[in-house]
Amino acid sequence: MTQAQTPETQQLIETAHALADAARAAILPVFRGADLSIENKLDGGFDPVTVADKAAERAMRAILAERRPDDGILGEEYGHAEGTSGWTWVLDPIDGTRAFMAGAPTWGVLIAVSDEAGPKFGIVDQPYIGERFCGGFGLSTYSGPMGDRPLGTRATRDLSDAVIMTTFPEVGTPDEMGAFQRVAEKCKLTRYGMDCYAYALIAAGQIDLVIEAGLNAYDIQAPMAVIEAAGGIVTDWNGNPAHNGGQVIAAANADIHAQALAAIQKR
Amino acid sequence: MTQAQTPETQQLIETAHALADAARAAILPVFRGADLSIENKLDGGFDPVTVADKAAERAMRAILAERRPDDGILGEEYGHAEGTSGWTWVLDPIDGTRAFMAGAPTWGVLIAVSDEAGPKFGIVDQPYIGERFCGGFGLSTYSGPMGDRPLGTRATRDLSDAVIMTTFPEVGTPDEMGAFQRVAEKCKLTRYGMDCYAYALIAAGQIDLVIEAGLNAYDIQAPMAVIEAAGGIVTDWNGNPAHNGGQVIAAANADIHAQALAAIQKR
Repeated sequence: MTQAQTPETQQLIETAHALADAARAAILPVFRGADLSIENKLDGGFDPVTVADKAAERAMRAILAERRPDDGILGEEYGHAEGTSGWTWVLDPIDGTRAFMAGAPTWGVLIAVSDEAGPKFGIVDQPYIGERFCGGFGLSTYSGPMGDRPLGTRATRDLSDAVIMTTFPEVGTPDEMGAFQRVAEKCKLTRYGMDCYAYALIAAGQIDLVIEAGLNAYDIQAPMAVIEAAGGIVTDWNGNPAHNGGQVIAAANADIHAQALAAIQKR
Repeated sequence: MTQAQTPETQQLIETAHALADAARAAILPVFRGADLSIENKLDGGFDPVTVADKAAERAMRAILAERRPDDGILGEEYGHAEGTSGWTWVLDPIDGTRAFMAGAPTWGVLIAVSDEAGPKFGIVDQPYIGERFCGGFGLSTYSGPMGDRPLGTRATRDLSDAVIMTTFPEVGTPDEMGAFQRVAEKCKLTRYGMDCYAYALIAAGQIDLVIEAGLNAYDIQAPMAVIEAAGGIVTDWNGNPAHNGGQVIAAANADIHAQALAAIQKR
């Protein structure tokens, strides 16, 4: 499914890569640093925000102010700024702050450019490994330790042969955890704690499903663009659009998506 | 804690690196491959063994046959071969086969060289990221995306500020899971599914504790050497030597180890 780029889509793609490069440069000097400064964003909750998180979003916003001043921005750290162009950049500088704090390489930089209907192009970037998963505007690409490759999701298979990942039990309500379990118990293998990296693994054809809840728009828009461009499908738990977050199911193809949806809705 | 190398320790260290290099070369072409051939080692259980797992152990054994023919070998895939030198190589070519199958970068190659008292030098290698964590014979080193660095565990802190990782709920009995939970509920942050990578993160000063059960000797000897060389401590759940596997607690320092041990034993 290739698609000719217009000057505008070309510029949007180049800008997205520039944002990802800037985020890498801001974050990597802090990752696994001894003086990691953690703030507690929510009283009573555990939602650490690192110095790197804020520095990366500032660096990305500075690039957008110069290159795309008419676009809107929705960022995890610095909120929403309306634009006039019809495009909005949806940014999560470090998705998976718990992984980041623990030194694990499963966090990522999430960058999407979206219109009202949802994301049109997205990047999931893992700076420490040096991996970048991109999708949208007719492109679906990986670059990293394996060089440059196309992305593509897995072929259809029975749920009993599927691999599922999630951030449960760290997210969601007990009821939502129960719904996740109804799917997971039918799958061959469940893995926890992979954060946004799990979505990249769907796009790379390595796993079949990710099911999560309590997501924000900036948690899901970049993964959604990457997965859909690679042949997968991302919806909420009722099969409706998921780009505003909430309860999300991401699947390698429509068939496994339907099987998982049936299991999740069987209350 | 530097230590002058003898010709023999020097040769053992060089051999360990040669094994790790050979394992990388055998495994990487298969990682994330489309034609990953999985066998089911245990009827009814889920213990996948990949082609890469066996190829890597064969490659390592070939090097040992040439360089260290008098040493013993204990390997995950091809069993135990007695030696006459007093040294035994303890090899797990792919620790974290579930992660490997799912394309996640948290599996590792585990290589230890041990005498009767336990491991004296170990390597935890992550080929996809290109990270190598080494420890023993007076050395404690990291090489990877951050260049070459010394390793060192975290300073002491209260359990309530600690980060703990585990492969539970995938390993162990319900009672063992309960014991793990008694420690985890006192910690600041629990992360699941990091496989052997969690031990490397203790040595790298990123986390405080790993608690697991049901381990084999080849699962723990390399991590043990790396962690102890970096300043940490690894024992079983009674504070006794852990190099034969079983129930294992790995800690960044003696103080956090004592706190965790007290919590785990409070039945």
